[in-house]
Amino acid sequence: MKTQITYLQPVMQIQGRQNAQNIKGKSYEKFFNPQLAAPVEMVNAVNAGALPSEKIFAPTAENLNRWLADPYQMPVSGYGVLNEGGRGITAFTCSRHFMPNVNSEMFKWWMLWHTVEKERYTLWFPQAHISNSLADPERAADTSLSFEERFYNNSNHIVEYIGEMVLDTEAEFVPPTQFGFTQELLEKQGITASASGWAHTVGNKNVATAILIHLVRNVDGGAEMFSLYYTTPHAEFSRIAQIEGAGERGVQFALSQGLTERHALSSAYEMAVHDMTEFTHLAEILPELYAQFGQQ
Amino acid sequence: MKTQITYLQPVMQIQGRQNAQNIKGKSYEKFFNPQLAAPVEMVNAVNAGALPSEKIFAPTAENLNRWLADPYQMPVSGYGVLNEGGRGITAFTCSRHFMPNVNSEMFKWWMLWHTVEKERYTLWFPQAHISNSLADPERAADTSLSFEERFYNNSNHIVEYIGEMVLDTEAEFVPPTQFGFTQELLEKQGITASASGWAHTVGNKNVATAILIHLVRNVDGGAEMFSLYYTTPHAEFSRIAQIEGAGERGVQFALSQGLTERHALSSAYEMAVHDMTEFTHLAEILPELYAQFGQQ
Repeated sequence: MKTQITYLQPVMQIQGRQNAQNIKGKSYEKFFNPQLAAPVEMVNAVNAGALPSEKIFAPTAENLNRWLADPYQMPVSGYGVLNEGGRGITAFTCSRHFMPNVNSEMFKWWMLWHTVEKERYTLWFPQAHISNSLADPERAADTSLSFEERFYNNSNHIVEYIGEMVLDTEAEFVPPTQFGFTQELLEKQGITASASGWAHTVGNKNVATAILIHLVRNVDGGAEMFSLYYTTPHAEFSRIAQIEGAGERGVQFALSQGLTERHALSSAYEMAVHDMTEFTHLAEILPELYAQFGQQ
Repeated sequence: MKTQITYLQPVMQIQGRQNAQNIKGKSYEKFFNPQLAAPVEMVNAVNAGALPSEKIFAPTAENLNRWLADPYQMPVSGYGVLNEGGRGITAFTCSRHFMPNVNSEMFKWWMLWHTVEKERYTLWFPQAHISNSLADPERAADTSLSFEERFYNNSNHIVEYIGEMVLDTEAEFVPPTQFGFTQELLEKQGITASASGWAHTVGNKNVATAILIHLVRNVDGGAEMFSLYYTTPHAEFSRIAQIEGAGERGVQFALSQGLTERHALSSAYEMAVHDMTEFTHLAEILPELYAQFGQQ
């Protein structure tokens, strides 16, 4: 059962009106729907307080594999802070989505298709999304390549509201094994699509600022997605970025900007609300959108 | 038709848990219900963007009377900013509530009864309210006096979250005629209860920071309440406070604190969300609460 989203920051309301103007005349305009909802169980989970500390973990390979081995150990949506001081005051968010009538092929198609025009990106979250583009659109458009060849290591330049703050970042999507997930476990869990990446300040891969993990599998009646976000830096990001010191420099950068535990908590919560809103919404439009534009 | 509130700032989630602990053992504990909802029409109105400038007005006597003469000229809930520069960058919020099975007697009773213990105040908005008390509780308790004699000019010290900011203020509730409403119009509109006041920094009546207006009338099946809030200062507050320069000093104080139009817009929106949440919730509990405790 779903319920209507009741809160939208004024800056998002303004962005939503602008996006509604921009999309006029596009062939996919009818898929722009500002009516947002989320599953009641996610709403209740995310408003029940921050996760207890034993549910929050650093993104080590061991922890990530333990999570993927049993993603139902986590609530359907949750947020909190992992405060390891000099190793990071790290905003943590997790979620599980069931997306009816979606499959991992549609998901992969969407991750590429929406990057071609910023108006497509706004279908996903009409009030929060501003633009997303790939560094190498030609490679992204080359249908002789696999999704992974087109999408991975092809920088996404993402601009969007997370809460009332504009996030302007570059994200490098990489194979999930680069995070430390074992091939064996990915197969055992039936993961058939991954959009997992690490983010850095624009133009500077030496300062890692966030990671996000989306792992998708096909299940009866649709697709299931398991997600993790770390939206403020942690030293462990160096391992994932495969750039020595990138995580530590991210931590120092965040601290120099005045990051506190309260900010990190707010960041983690906003990410959880954003996630439950945008993926619920994407699942509502994706099957029909794919039916109409999936051959492009 | 109502819908569940889907967003609660982390600081409010923490406060809500603390309030749930504090109320344990109180005779009215069963009325503490953290499940919040608001009418769909209010949710839609408040997320449809800020009010157009022609719907936003300074709190002059003329404007206030024009509003009360036809409160249905305004949407059921709305927010915006009146930017008059040196006279104030003023956050403006309006609302109309229908409260089924409530009447103005219950409303007046509630406005006094809840100030006796902070736990009572938390019934009204379990995650946002911290404490509210009156400067002269003995006068407030004197049932030989009228509501107006007990409540007006008896400073309320209010501490609550509005959004993620703690509001810690003193409010002076005064007769609605002090705002400039004419007695004739109040009678014509059938207003039988008013909780309308102006707020100032704690301990200092010379700096007026906000005004709030709640006018209640009995209608078929319940009570109707018309509300206005100005939550950042405007020069006109001097007239309402009847203190020369109090409004202008409020404006200067706010500007010295770095108030911008964006902050004011956010303040107005948070007030609108707070209003739709707390008065919808109060209406849900008040009839039974009054039936049980109304003789106190």
